[in-house]
Amino acid sequence: MMNIVKKKNPLILLSNDDGVNAKGLHTLIDIIKPFGDIVVVAPEKGQSGQSHAITIDLPIRVTKVLENDNVLIYSCTGTPVDSVKLAINQILPRKPDFLISGINHGSNASISVIYSGTMAAAIEGCLNGIPSIGFSVLDHSDNADFSLVKAYAGSILKNVMENDLPAGTCLNVNFPVIPIDKLKGIRICRQTRGVWKQEYERRIDPHNDEYFWLTGDFHNFESDAKDTDEWALANKYIAIVPIQVDLTSYEGIKKIRDWNYESNI
Amino acid sequence: MMNIVKKKNPLILLSNDDGVNAKGLHTLIDIIKPFGDIVVVAPEKGQSGQSHAITIDLPIRVTKVLENDNVLIYSCTGTPVDSVKLAINQILPRKPDFLISGINHGSNASISVIYSGTMAAAIEGCLNGIPSIGFSVLDHSDNADFSLVKAYAGSILKNVMENDLPAGTCLNVNFPVIPIDKLKGIRICRQTRGVWKQEYERRIDPHNDEYFWLTGDFHNFESDAKDTDEWALANKYIAIVPIQVDLTSYEGIKKIRDWNYESNI
Repeated sequence: MMNIVKKKNPLILLSNDDGVNAKGLHTLIDIIKPFGDIVVVAPEKGQSGQSHAITIDLPIRVTKVLENDNVLIYSCTGTPVDSVKLAINQILPRKPDFLISGINHGSNASISVIYSGTMAAAIEGCLNGIPSIGFSVLDHSDNADFSLVKAYAGSILKNVMENDLPAGTCLNVNFPVIPIDKLKGIRICRQTRGVWKQEYERRIDPHNDEYFWLTGDFHNFESDAKDTDEWALANKYIAIVPIQVDLTSYEGIKKIRDWNYESNI
Repeated sequence: MMNIVKKKNPLILLSNDDGVNAKGLHTLIDIIKPFGDIVVVAPEKGQSGQSHAITIDLPIRVTKVLENDNVLIYSCTGTPVDSVKLAINQILPRKPDFLISGINHGSNASISVIYSGTMAAAIEGCLNGIPSIGFSVLDHSDNADFSLVKAYAGSILKNVMENDLPAGTCLNVNFPVIPIDKLKGIRICRQTRGVWKQEYERRIDPHNDEYFWLTGDFHNFESDAKDTDEWALANKYIAIVPIQVDLTSYEGIKKIRDWNYESNI
């Protein structure tokens, strides 16, 4: 850790939601190594769908997993956002220069961005003033193919390093699963309007009691809109959506400003 | 349940993140009862800080807690967002006309909106096309004072019923804790820029092992800005922020469109 403080290399914080042993995270370490000193703080187990959850009622443990020349890896018992908060507040000797989350096994395009622990880690970095990126591939399997990420993630990070991101904005980058010679390029997109439907299977347990298990299909509300991330991915592009931490609807402010409110007392 | 299907009253889904027994939820039931038939689906235990988390790897149980003339209450073992999804997908006979979440014990102003299970429930309703509102009071105690909510929540719901909300927008309504005769009014606001800092206490357990526990102070980055929710609340107003489910930064799109990307292969 002392080496990291003394060195003038960029300090890059990595996290994810698939857990500290995920192939995506270790692929990301290899990709990012040439760009600076790396500290990983990631959940010890998979935490998909944890969104921006934080652990309030339980203590969190942190374990150092690996330390070598320019990579330090910690696991923690908390969520992805807990991991980022602990890194910033307790583990790192200084504020990291960049935060990179992923590589997520599975898509975080469209509305999935809102459920994703991987993107929540990036958003948590962003709201702490750290330029942050989340990388995801459209392959949910443990042994997902990260070739396209290997080819392009460095270039995307280089752009962030050289050009800065707008304040309060991080990047949601999703990669299609196609051979690299079929890739048509990179598109800057907006988040597709869509929703998950038919979301639960009703089942009966061995004791004849009912339970429900999450499942579901994604419904794209605007499959013809060519400026969306889903369209880009379906058409062999890497999709980059700039994501903001300000959730205010400024159009909404104008619309509801003239409402009339009365107390019933 | 059959009565609810046959009746022509609005069907109003309630949820929260403080759990099915919280005073805030039962106060909300009393407030909303005159406006329609109520179905509550809420976590069986407190789930503060669960944000938009969903339960993927475990089954969820649902229990009917109460049924009377126009109120049905279910608890579930999942998160606030699980509760809303189960209500829409499995429990309700038709899509609810409105979703109201809360009353949260504690503020969901500024960046807290992003960690809040109460607001996540409202956002989940919103992205399913249901006009949705989250109510919170700036009092974290179990026995919080909900007088101001009793006086104004009905009027806010009435406005939503009569005027509609812009598509993809829900309301984040926070109430100050002041006597009703000190209230200056209601302000439509934007989300204050701010962050939580000094977030963990490092402690040593009885076995001499280290652990961390979440704590922290809120830092307001713009305490003089009079159009923010934090300013409104500090100055004796009820704060309403319209919240959108589209996280795209459209300014960000313009800024990063001209970046230059190169494969390293």
